Amino acid sequence: MSDIEVIRNQLTLHTDFPKKGVNFIDIFPIFRDPGVFEILINHLVDHITSVTLPKTPNNKIDVVVGLDARGFLIGPIVALKLGAAFVPVRKRGKLPGKCVSASYEKEYAPDIFEMQVEAIKPGQNAIVLDDVIATGGSAKAAGDLVTQLGGTVIEYVFMIEIPSLDGAARLNAPLYSMIQIEKK
Amino acid sequence: MSDIEVIRNQLTLHTDFPKKGVNFIDIFPIFRDPGVFEILINHLVDHITSVTLPKTPNNKIDVVVGLDARGFLIGPIVALKLGAAFVPVRKRGKLPGKCVSASYEKEYAPDIFEMQVEAIKPGQNAIVLDDVIATGGSAKAAGDLVTQLGGTVIEYVFMIEIPSLDGAARLNAPLYSMIQIEKK
Repeated sequence: MSDIEVIRNQLTLHTDFPKKGVNFIDIFPIFRDPGVFEILINHLVDHITSVTLPKTPNNKIDVVVGLDARGFLIGPIVALKLGAAFVPVRKRGKLPGKCVSASYEKEYAPDIFEMQVEAIKPGQNAIVLDDVIATGGSAKAAGDLVTQLGGTVIEYVFMIEIPSLDGAARLNAPLYSMIQIEKK
Repeated sequence: MSDIEVIRNQLTLHTDFPKKGVNFIDIFPIFRDPGVFEILINHLVDHITSVTLPKTPNNKIDVVVGLDARGFLIGPIVALKLGAAFVPVRKRGKLPGKCVSASYEKEYAPDIFEMQVEAIKPGQNAIVLDDVIATGGSAKAAGDLVTQLGGTVIEYVFMIEIPSLDGAARLNAPLYSMIQIEKK
């Protein structure tokens, strides 16, 4: 079995969760098996070091940006393996100190993300990392925050992409997803 | 400088955040420096392997339980290094499938935590991990969930403890904290 198949086999689909008409992809079974979790992390890090890094002018990823809350599960460990900083994106009011903000659409209502201004220095290379990309609204907002602080998003990296929702079209840098799932 | 001093020096205190009268300890500067982050992880893993593991009947930690959202930052990597499962605790309605639940007090209003029933098997040894313990309400609820599924909490592990709030008194297993901070 390929590493992609190992991870795909762990995902469970829950219909009508959290509400009717929504199909929810549960990633948490991956984390119940440390061997499987390690396969996931190694796949993402291998991709970044072999494909993403050569796209940077100085062969360096300075920052891994992770979205609250499920981006927190994989972002810090990927950052550690790359020797990069981990920087969180959280909803407004969750991060202390001076922050930049960007709005995004969540279930038809706008919401606001923030990032601490000290977290990224001008000229740094960043990756935006999250578990799933659907319409791409939250990933785009995270990228906007990087740009506001003078950083450059080199790539958006996800465990799972839902290609039919075309989140990639909203992003200002290439997208990489380990697994593609089509929702009905 | 000791590893504890290195981590303590990264913490920043924000007065009147998120509201007047509250002092907020920001842990995110730790994650901006991969060398510092690695010191944190190594300290926690060293403690668990040298002090906590010998307390288990079979010299094994099966599960690391992490609380949404900041427990997600360190839980998966600590679990991976221990060869254990990582299991999340989240607010009601965030986890799909069959769950057990436990209530806790949050800022004078009750809230409910959940854990997936498939996440822990009877007889497994667990550690509950979070960034900060204050009054211990959320840690206690996480421990209750482990007990409901037939697991045993071997230890509650935190980066930071506020001893004057005596969270330890509410817990059904020993507490370990890397750093103790007194709030005025």
